[in-house]
Amino acid sequence: MPVPAEALTALGNVLGGRLSRSGPDLDQHGRSETWFPKALPDAVAYPETVDEVAAIARICAAHGCPLTAWGAGTSLEGHALAIKGGICVDFTRMNRVLKINPEDMDAVVQPGVTREALNVELRATGLFFPVDPGANATLGGMASTRASGTTAVRYGTMRDNVLALQVVLADGRVIRTGTRARKSSAGYDLTGLFVGAEGTLGLITELTVRLQGQPEAISAAVCAFDAIGPAVDTVIQTIQLGIPMARIEFVDEATAAAVNAYAGARFPVKPHLMVEFHGSASGVAEQAEAFGEIVADNGGAGFEWSARPEDRTALWTMRHNAYYACLASRPGATALVTDLCVPISKLAQAVEETRADIARSHIPGPILGHVGDGNFHAILLVDPDNPVELAEAKRLAHRMTERALRLGGTISGEHGIGMGKLGHMAAEHGPAWDVMGEIKRALDPLGLMNPGKMIRQE
Amino acid sequence: MPVPAEALTALGNVLGGRLSRSGPDLDQHGRSETWFPKALPDAVAYPETVDEVAAIARICAAHGCPLTAWGAGTSLEGHALAIKGGICVDFTRMNRVLKINPEDMDAVVQPGVTREALNVELRATGLFFPVDPGANATLGGMASTRASGTTAVRYGTMRDNVLALQVVLADGRVIRTGTRARKSSAGYDLTGLFVGAEGTLGLITELTVRLQGQPEAISAAVCAFDAIGPAVDTVIQTIQLGIPMARIEFVDEATAAAVNAYAGARFPVKPHLMVEFHGSASGVAEQAEAFGEIVADNGGAGFEWSARPEDRTALWTMRHNAYYACLASRPGATALVTDLCVPISKLAQAVEETRADIARSHIPGPILGHVGDGNFHAILLVDPDNPVELAEAKRLAHRMTERALRLGGTISGEHGIGMGKLGHMAAEHGPAWDVMGEIKRALDPLGLMNPGKMIRQE
Ligand SMILES: Cc1cc2nc3c(=O)[nH]c(=O)nc-3n(C[C@H](O)[C@H](O)[C@H](O)COP(=O)(O)OP(=O)(O)OC[C@H]3O[C@@H](n4cnc5c(N)ncnc54)[C@H](O)[C@@H]3O)c2cc1C
Ligand SMILES: Cc1cc2nc3c(=O)[nH]c(=O)nc-3n(C[C@H](O)[C@H](O)[C@H](O)COP(=O)(O)OP(=O)(O)OC[C@H]3O[C@@H](n4cnc5c(N)ncnc54)[C@H](O)[C@@H]3O)c2cc1C
Repeated sequence: MPVPAEALTALGNVLGGRLSRSGPDLDQHGRSETWFPKALPDAVAYPETVDEVAAIARICAAHGCPLTAWGAGTSLEGHALAIKGGICVDFTRMNRVLKINPEDMDAVVQPGVTREALNVELRATGLFFPVDPGANATLGGMASTRASGTTAVRYGTMRDNVLALQVVLADGRVIRTGTRARKSSAGYDLTGLFVGAEGTLGLITELTVRLQGQPEAISAAVCAFDAIGPAVDTVIQTIQLGIPMARIEFVDEATAAAVNAYAGARFPVKPHLMVEFHGSASGVAEQAEAFGEIVADNGGAGFEWSARPEDRTALWTMRHNAYYACLASRPGATALVTDLCVPISKLAQAVEETRADIARSHIPGPILGHVGDGNFHAILLVDPDNPVELAEAKRLAHRMTERALRLGGTISGEHGIGMGKLGHMAAEHGPAWDVMGEIKRALDPLGLMNPGKMIRQE
Repeated sequence: MPVPAEALTALGNVLGGRLSRSGPDLDQHGRSETWFPKALPDAVAYPETVDEVAAIARICAAHGCPLTAWGAGTSLEGHALAIKGGICVDFTRMNRVLKINPEDMDAVVQPGVTREALNVELRATGLFFPVDPGANATLGGMASTRASGTTAVRYGTMRDNVLALQVVLADGRVIRTGTRARKSSAGYDLTGLFVGAEGTLGLITELTVRLQGQPEAISAAVCAFDAIGPAVDTVIQTIQLGIPMARIEFVDEATAAAVNAYAGARFPVKPHLMVEFHGSASGVAEQAEAFGEIVADNGGAGFEWSARPEDRTALWTMRHNAYYACLASRPGATALVTDLCVPISKLAQAVEETRADIARSHIPGPILGHVGDGNFHAILLVDPDNPVELAEAKRLAHRMTERALRLGGTISGEHGIGMGKLGHMAAEHGPAWDVMGEIKRALDPLGLMNPGKMIRQE
C-alpha cells in the first residue's frame, strides 16, 4: 500500500527538503548488511527534533502509514527494512551529545549519535561508553536491538547501560521513561521495555546512558589453542575463578585465516582467544598472571601481554573487522549471521556441535564470538544467487536455534529478531510471545511501527 | 465487594485446608510493617504448585475476584495489602530451591524462598545471592518490588540479578520470560517488565537468579565524620575514583544513637559510613588503602579495618537492625519510610535539605541509606494515633519526592510504590504513567491483580 499523497504533503510541510523520495536515498535505506532481499521505503524522513518526530508519528497514524526507524543500518537480521513500505525515519541528523555529567558518570545523547562519536566526545573526561558492537552503530539502534559486543562480559549490554529514554509513541505522545538516578523502583520498567523493542513500540528520541571511568591500566593478549575445546575451557575456568575480564573473544581457525588474508595478520591458523583486563596496575597484573596459568593448563601458546595502546588498538580493530574478513574470504558472498547464547557450561558443546554441523554442510561458516557471555556467531557465507545455498544456511541456522534452546539458551544473544529470527520466536517464548503481541497492540493499536517484525504476524 | 461463595467453593476444591478464612490469618495478612491502616483480605490461599496458582487465577477471573500476592509482607509502602479485599495468595509454601547450577552461577527457586534461606543452601557451593534488603524478604517479593539494599552498588538490584521468571497471568496462562543465557536480544524484555510490577501484572511462580562467587577476601570498616557533608563527599570521591565498593552505607547521628540504645553499640553520636570491599587479598588491601586516604582527607575518624567474619557480621547485623532501632527510639511509634534516589552529585544537597526540613518539623526522622547508589531513607517516626503527626510526616515525605525529582532523581530507589507513593507517580512519570496503565489493561483487563496499586485509579 503506497503512502497517500496527503500524508506526503503533510510530512513535507513539517520536514521540507528533509523528506526525501530520491532513488538513491530509498535504495540506501532498502538494503541491509546481510542476505535479506531489498525492501524500499516510500520515503525517507530526516527529523532534527523530537517535535518533528512526534509530528511524523501523528501524520502516519492519521493516514495508516507504516514508519520504520533507521539508525546506522548495521543490524544483521533485516531489522530496519521497511518491508511494508511507508516512511523510513532516519535519525542521522539527530546526532548531538546533549550533556555529559562527568561527576555522575552519565550522558544525555540524541539517538543518531554513534558510539565512536560519543567516545570521541568523552575523551577529555576520562570516561567512556563501554558497549561495543564492533560496527559504528547509533545509540538509538543499539538500544533498540539491546546490543552488546566485546565488553558486555564486564560492563553489560544496552539493557544495563541505558538509564532513561525519551520516546515518541505511535500516536505522537512523547514520554520519558526514567531519571538520572542509578536505580529506581518507581513503576513498570518502561526503559527496559523499549530497549530491545526494535522500533516496534516507539521511536527513541533521546537516551541517558551510563558511562565508565577509563581504567587506570589496560592489558590485552591473544593466544592460540590446538582445538576449540581447550580454548572454551579456558573461558569457563576464568569465569569460574571470578577473574574479571573486560573482554574475552573467541575466533576459530577459519576466522584466523580470514583475518590473516584480509588484514595481513600472521595468526597461526588455530582457534584463538583475545582478552583484555581493566583495573589498577597491580590488579591487571594479578589478573593477567592468573589467566596465564589457566591458558598454560589448557595448552595455549603464543601468549603475550601488551599494555601498549597501539598494539591493543591493532588487536581490536582486527577483531572488529573479522566479519568483513570472513565476507572477503568468499568473494561475492553474502552472509547469514547466527547468534546463539547459552549457559557457559554448555558453550563447548554448542560450539563443537555447530562446527560439526557446518563441516558436514557445503557452506563455509567461520565461528567467532563473545564467549565470556556464552555468545557466539557462525558467519554462514552463501552465494546470493544460489537458492540451494541459502536454503542450506537457513537449515543450519535453524538447527543452531534449536540447539540454543535445547541447551537452555536463547536464539539471539545480541543481534535481535528483525526478519530473520521471527520464525523462531514461538519456539523460544511459547505463550509469552502472545504477551508481547498484547503489549504491542496496547501501545501501537494500528500496527504501524516497524510492521512485520517482532510479534506473531496474522 | 465480598468474594462470591462459589469462588470460595471452587478455591476450596483446589486448595482444601490451604484456603484459610481464620481470623488470625486474615489479620496477619492485613497488616504491613509501616503506618498503613489494616486492610484484610477475604481469604488467604497457600498454593504449593504453579498449577494451583493458575487455578486460583482462573477462578478469580471467572468470579471477578481480586487477588494480591504475599511474600514475607516486609514491603514498606503497603504493597501487599488487599485494599479491595479478595484473595491473598501467600507464597510461603512454595519455598524450595529447585536447582543450583554452580558452573553457570545461577539458581532456580520458588518465589517463597527467602534470601537468607537461599544463601544457607548456597553455602557449600562457594556462591551467594547478593541482593540484600536487610529484611528476610522472599525472592518473589524482592523481584516484585525491584528490591536492592546494601550490596546494589556492586552487584546491582533485582533488575540485574533475575535472569528469567515463570509467571501466572491474570487469566491463568503460565509463561516463561527468559532462559538461563546471560543475555538475550530475543524480544521484549518481559522479565524486566514483571520485575518491579508489584504483583499487578502476574504472579511469579519461579525465578532464575544470578549468583556471585564468594570473594576471596572481604574487608569491612566503619568510620565517623563530624558532619554529613564530608561523609557524603567521601562517598562521591570514592565512586569517582572507581574504587569498587561492595557496600557503602550512611547512617546519621540520630541513627547512630538509636543503634547504640537498641543494640548496645558504642558509636560516637555522629554521621557514619560503613563500607565493605570484596576481591582478592591484595585487591581489597589496595582498595582499603585508597579509601582510607579519602576518609582522612574528609576528616573521618575511628577508621578501622576488619577482615574477621564475626566483626563484619556484627556490623551488618547492626545496620540491618537500624530500622527497628529507630522505631524503638520512639516507643509506640510507627514509621513512614521515605526512599529518594538522586544522581550522586546531588546526594549531599538532597540529604542536607531533607535533614533541615525534618529539623524544622516536630517529628524525629533519622536518615540512613545506600549512599553508593545515591539512595537514602528518612524514617519518619509518628504516633499512630495522632493524625497531625501523620499529616506532617506525609508533608515531609511529599517534599522529599519533589526534591528527588527536582534533583534529577526518582521518588523510589528501591521500596516501590504500593499505596504510599501512588500519589507521586504522575509527578515522576507524566504521560509515561498512562502507558503503564495501558500495559496493565492489556495484561489484566479485569483489573484483578493487586487492584488499587501502581496505575492511575479511575
Ligand atoms: C561488522 C558488524 C559487527 C557487529 N557486531 C555486533 C556485536 O558485536 N554485537 C551486537 O550487539 N551487534 C553487532 N552488530 C549488529 C549491529 O551493529 C547492532 O544490531 C546495532 O545495534 C545496530 O545499530 P544501528 O544504529 O545500525 O541500527 P539499525 O540497523 O539502523 O536499526 C536497528 C533496529 O533498531 C531500530 N531503530 C534504530 N534507531 C531507532 C530509534 N531511534 N528508535 C527506535 N528504533 C530504532 C530500527 O528500526 C531497527 O529495527 C554488528 C554488525 C556488523 C555489521
Ligand atoms: C527492616 C527492613 C529493611 C528493609 N530494607 C530494604 C532495603 O534495604 N532495600 C529494599 O529494597 N527493601 C527493603 N525493605 C523492604 C522490603 O524488604 C522489600 O520491599 C522486599 O522486596 C519485600 O519482599 P517481601 O517478600 O516481604 O514481599 P511482600 O511485602 O510480601 O510483597 C511485596 C510486593 O510484591 C508482591 N509479591 C510478593 N510475592 C509475589 C509473587 N510471587 N508474585 C508477584 N507478586 C508478588 C506483593 O503483592 C507486593 O505488592 C526493608 C524492609 C524492612 C522491614
